[in-house]
Amino acid sequence: MSDNTVHLTFLPAGKTVEGVVGDSIMDLALAAGIHINASCGGSGTCGQCKVKVESGAVQGGYHPKLTPEEIRQGQRLACTAQVHGDSVVEILASSEVDHTAIERGRTGQGGRALQEMELRNLIQGLTIDPTVFKAHLRLTPPDKDDALPDLDRLLLALKREHGFHPVSADFRAVRQLGPILRSSDWEVTATLAFLGDRYKLIQVEAGDTVQENYAIVVDIGTTTLAAQLLDLKECQVVDCADDCPDDCNTLAGTSRYNPQISYGEDVINRILQAIKPHGLETMQKVVVDGINEMVEQLLIRSGVARERISHMVVAGNSTMSQIFLGLDPRSIREAPYVTAVSTVPVVGAKELGIHLGDHVHVWSFPLVASWVGGDIVAGVLGSGIWQRDETTLFIDVGTNGEIVLGNREWLVTTSCSAGPAFEGGGIVCGMRAAKGAIEDVWINPETFDVNLGVIGRRKPRGICGSGLIAAVAELFEKGVVEPNGKYREELDTPRLRGSEHGGREFVLAWGSETETGEDVFLTETDLDNLIRTKAAIYAGCKVLMESVGLGFADVEQVIIAGGFGQALDLEKSVAIGLLPPLPTDRFLFVGNGALLGARFVSFSREMHAEAENVARMMTHVDLADNTAFMDQYVAAMFLPHTDAREFEARLQKTAA
Amino acid sequence: MSDNTVHLTFLPAGKTVEGVVGDSIMDLALAAGIHINASCGGSGTCGQCKVKVESGAVQGGYHPKLTPEEIRQGQRLACTAQVHGDSVVEILASSEVDHTAIERGRTGQGGRALQEMELRNLIQGLTIDPTVFKAHLRLTPPDKDDALPDLDRLLLALKREHGFHPVSADFRAVRQLGPILRSSDWEVTATLAFLGDRYKLIQVEAGDTVQENYAIVVDIGTTTLAAQLLDLKECQVVDCADDCPDDCNTLAGTSRYNPQISYGEDVINRILQAIKPHGLETMQKVVVDGINEMVEQLLIRSGVARERISHMVVAGNSTMSQIFLGLDPRSIREAPYVTAVSTVPVVGAKELGIHLGDHVHVWSFPLVASWVGGDIVAGVLGSGIWQRDETTLFIDVGTNGEIVLGNREWLVTTSCSAGPAFEGGGIVCGMRAAKGAIEDVWINPETFDVNLGVIGRRKPRGICGSGLIAAVAELFEKGVVEPNGKYREELDTPRLRGSEHGGREFVLAWGSETETGEDVFLTETDLDNLIRTKAAIYAGCKVLMESVGLGFADVEQVIIAGGFGQALDLEKSVAIGLLPPLPTDRFLFVGNGALLGARFVSFSREMHAEAENVARMMTHVDLADNTAFMDQYVAAMFLPHTDAREFEARLQKTAA
Repeated sequence: MSDNTVHLTFLPAGKTVEGVVGDSIMDLALAAGIHINASCGGSGTCGQCKVKVESGAVQGGYHPKLTPEEIRQGQRLACTAQVHGDSVVEILASSEVDHTAIERGRTGQGGRALQEMELRNLIQGLTIDPTVFKAHLRLTPPDKDDALPDLDRLLLALKREHGFHPVSADFRAVRQLGPILRSSDWEVTATLAFLGDRYKLIQVEAGDTVQENYAIVVDIGTTTLAAQLLDLKECQVVDCADDCPDDCNTLAGTSRYNPQISYGEDVINRILQAIKPHGLETMQKVVVDGINEMVEQLLIRSGVARERISHMVVAGNSTMSQIFLGLDPRSIREAPYVTAVSTVPVVGAKELGIHLGDHVHVWSFPLVASWVGGDIVAGVLGSGIWQRDETTLFIDVGTNGEIVLGNREWLVTTSCSAGPAFEGGGIVCGMRAAKGAIEDVWINPETFDVNLGVIGRRKPRGICGSGLIAAVAELFEKGVVEPNGKYREELDTPRLRGSEHGGREFVLAWGSETETGEDVFLTETDLDNLIRTKAAIYAGCKVLMESVGLGFADVEQVIIAGGFGQALDLEKSVAIGLLPPLPTDRFLFVGNGALLGARFVSFSREMHAEAENVARMMTHVDLADNTAFMDQYVAAMFLPHTDAREFEARLQKTAA
Repeated sequence: MSDNTVHLTFLPAGKTVEGVVGDSIMDLALAAGIHINASCGGSGTCGQCKVKVESGAVQGGYHPKLTPEEIRQGQRLACTAQVHGDSVVEILASSEVDHTAIERGRTGQGGRALQEMELRNLIQGLTIDPTVFKAHLRLTPPDKDDALPDLDRLLLALKREHGFHPVSADFRAVRQLGPILRSSDWEVTATLAFLGDRYKLIQVEAGDTVQENYAIVVDIGTTTLAAQLLDLKECQVVDCADDCPDDCNTLAGTSRYNPQISYGEDVINRILQAIKPHGLETMQKVVVDGINEMVEQLLIRSGVARERISHMVVAGNSTMSQIFLGLDPRSIREAPYVTAVSTVPVVGAKELGIHLGDHVHVWSFPLVASWVGGDIVAGVLGSGIWQRDETTLFIDVGTNGEIVLGNREWLVTTSCSAGPAFEGGGIVCGMRAAKGAIEDVWINPETFDVNLGVIGRRKPRGICGSGLIAAVAELFEKGVVEPNGKYREELDTPRLRGSEHGGREFVLAWGSETETGEDVFLTETDLDNLIRTKAAIYAGCKVLMESVGLGFADVEQVIIAGGFGQALDLEKSVAIGLLPPLPTDRFLFVGNGALLGARFVSFSREMHAEAENVARMMTHVDLADNTAFMDQYVAAMFLPHTDAREFEARLQKTAA
């Protein structure tokens, strides 16, 4: 063993990893497969990756975001702290990626969250006819007068008995064929995939397995991965089995943070990471690892055998899609911002490292532009905008906010960087929607006493996106915050005080009430970040509408998609000017739009064939050098908006 | 280390391998990648796998084919000798597979061996237009007003500038695309494969590489592997470079024994081996190893870079094709004798273990029946029978003899087990066409003195296929052998004597004249084996002709294919009744028919598209339970034939 070798043990996991003197704690955590929050990608600026040194020799890792008390306790930033001898560090609760909170499946308040069968009605005349299907065959064995080769025999039966012709054969299916035909006494089930323009034989199984035909659909979000297991025979989502070993409340699917988060919170940081030497391989592997974990969980929870999974459908934004597929993403962030592909070639699951059978193909939604990817095509496809007469506004709120406007005649789309504020980024006491996060806020207009709704009904330790919207809406409505996003000067409450982060801050919870013993508060800088985020989305909507000469009054329906969208409180979102002031009954919540579209292309060959057309219908409006966007953005930098008339109807309603 | 461990060193290679007590020498040779002749597949019957124990503890390995003197010297059979302690054995020259002799490129005598340009004239209107080709493109880089994705940009240029449309894209090519476009300043070369019904983009290279586009064609024979490197730009075979490191006389190609020989000499033994546990994997790997060795040799000799190889075409009999592709071959030898496929799916070279670029696809010739494979389809395609008015007989003589008869209207085909006699099998002093093999024989009709032609102009050590034909023809013509295959009783020469193998034997070379110091002779059993072989081929031809109501007189042309075919002496082959007694000018030697067809499908998209049609034209006549064949076979068990009238014209000519 070299003198340079060091061992680092991570608590609470108890995992030990070997490194060399000078390795950063973050590097060793990545090597150990331990994911630490770091929205800046480990560049030492965000201050989120706090760890506590329990023992050993760690140098550096100091940062202004660490208080003298924290430093005294041994807290350091993992990204800049170097290990110089065998050491033990504890990953603090605030730094650890929380895998439970995002599975809570909360639904939005106000508007209407649609159930699965209602979602299907979004599409007119949706024919249910799965893209990958199974055909049961009893073949006549060969004899002296009928010595057709095995494959020819199978293909002839598929043509005669099921009308499938021509069918090309995947080489791997052919390799299984002879032994399976003979061991099964010539009774087999053929799996066929309809991949756009032809049938392909992808698998042959002994006996009749027609009842067991499943697919996995995956949404690769910048922040969150989500997946569902689909029963292709019944064309429905598979819930947990009765003997599901997880205590997961029979969730239709699973999700977790995208483990790429350790390499940066937004797509730009991911691209920067991917273009380093071997960066693309690493980033690809990391996201595939996350998907494989979801695959395992879905299989365990459902009791479905791995070899019965016939297909995978993936939707992601352009960067996430390209990294997942191993396509160099650098051109996405370099002018003139082009993607590698529009139509994504079909690829074997095994070739990508997905732990599914050799026969499984991965079909990905087509991309529209660098900032409008397959997830939005899926959402548009699934929500049926492309075939409706009514002009519809589709908003998918995530780390990026993507917006689509249109109807059966035309579709325009754009994307604006919403930023991580709604997911805890850029907010001093911000955190993701995990246990201990404030998600709702009520303020007494007389005493300014605060009542909090906290995820997990426990002591608060920070504030998440929906809590942020609730807090700002409440602070604004109760007159604590001015339209310009500053706290009112003359207010007499100890909760309002000068902030060491500059400006002033409002205390939502005193240290005596919190899990950490420290105050949870909102600074004017936090308010400013939130306002920038909501202004970007609102301005994006406005510019998109103006690009086709329409106003909000012309919008007959607003569809809100996204995991975040489900938790969004409609009234409060309108109150702060995040969403346009339209009647409540025009809003629909469709949940995860990417998974919605992925289900539909799995369940319907017709929808599968439409995906390309929908992508081609979408005209991209670039906001990057758009002066109208800048004007709208600046105008929206007030609560709820510079032009009060925009929100008049709604404000009156709120006042009533 | 376990007490059971033993080490065995093989001389002259000096290679040492580890095994356990009781392992056979043959098993350890296979494990070491050393190939020992064993036509029986290691079952202890053929007696070919002689080794000499130099030191150590070896038990068993005795066999009647070993003389007491040989046993005293330490000679044993590798297949039945067990290693019980660390030992050293020498592989004897007669057991070692000889890699040099089969590359001599001998041409047949009599008839006419065609040169490459003449071969092309066999096909009427052969359009030269390679199946895998390269297009040089200078793309307009994207800008703000033209933000087409990379792949779309490339495909548009292929359509506009070269007229290729639609083109599907291989996933691996798409992965290379972005970085190559940008590093090459948007000047690239696209490799397109025409795989039957569409163009597929398989590779993108920086700059202009149009001049460097190569393919490798492979003939997978039961006994011999042969390969050529093709220049697809010039549509010609690549000869050795000036700085070729091998002393190989500028051969257009390379060949070697199929290393599967260690598992048995004929396809039946190979199938039996392949259906053992993991047998198919092993057999597949062994043949791929042999092909990879040829690939290396072709690259070294030509100086062509590995990444410039764009394509591979393979032709083999049905068993060889299926094992190479990893398709279970058991149904080939079990009634009703069906293959796994007729059309063979295209598969990635990498997936088969071939050491070529990820982009290389392997296209295989279609199979007709269990005993008529892609090599014969290739030979028929390449020799143009399928488009000629003249009725042509096509004979490919190898371990199996395949025969095709027909013209542009119809084609019938059959296969008969010719047996290994022509390759040294089943003949006491038989050997393959390697150095020291007698390949020609002249006998003084007065003194019965013998003059020999020996490969490598050295002392003889055995007799090969062409020598066998020459010897028997000479012995028969000089009256030493009777038409019934027995030596004449009254002959007074010491060369004729009683044989310890039964019957009598004729000494071709005395021990004092040979390399081994032992006599080289032909026994009556040897004569019988040869007669069975030639009778099978002749009877096959007869039955095939009779199946369509034709006789030899109706045959306007005879095409002889096969590596053996090139060395065949036409006059002598007719003299013993192997080939029909037709005028010399009706015979054409085309050399290796499989490689001929493989070249043509590589050089011509039209020929590529015809391959399936040619395979479908071929009607298979099964000789297995064919009484007419048995009658013809028995009738042909004389020299030259029971019915002397069959050979009258020829015999008169010979006597003249």
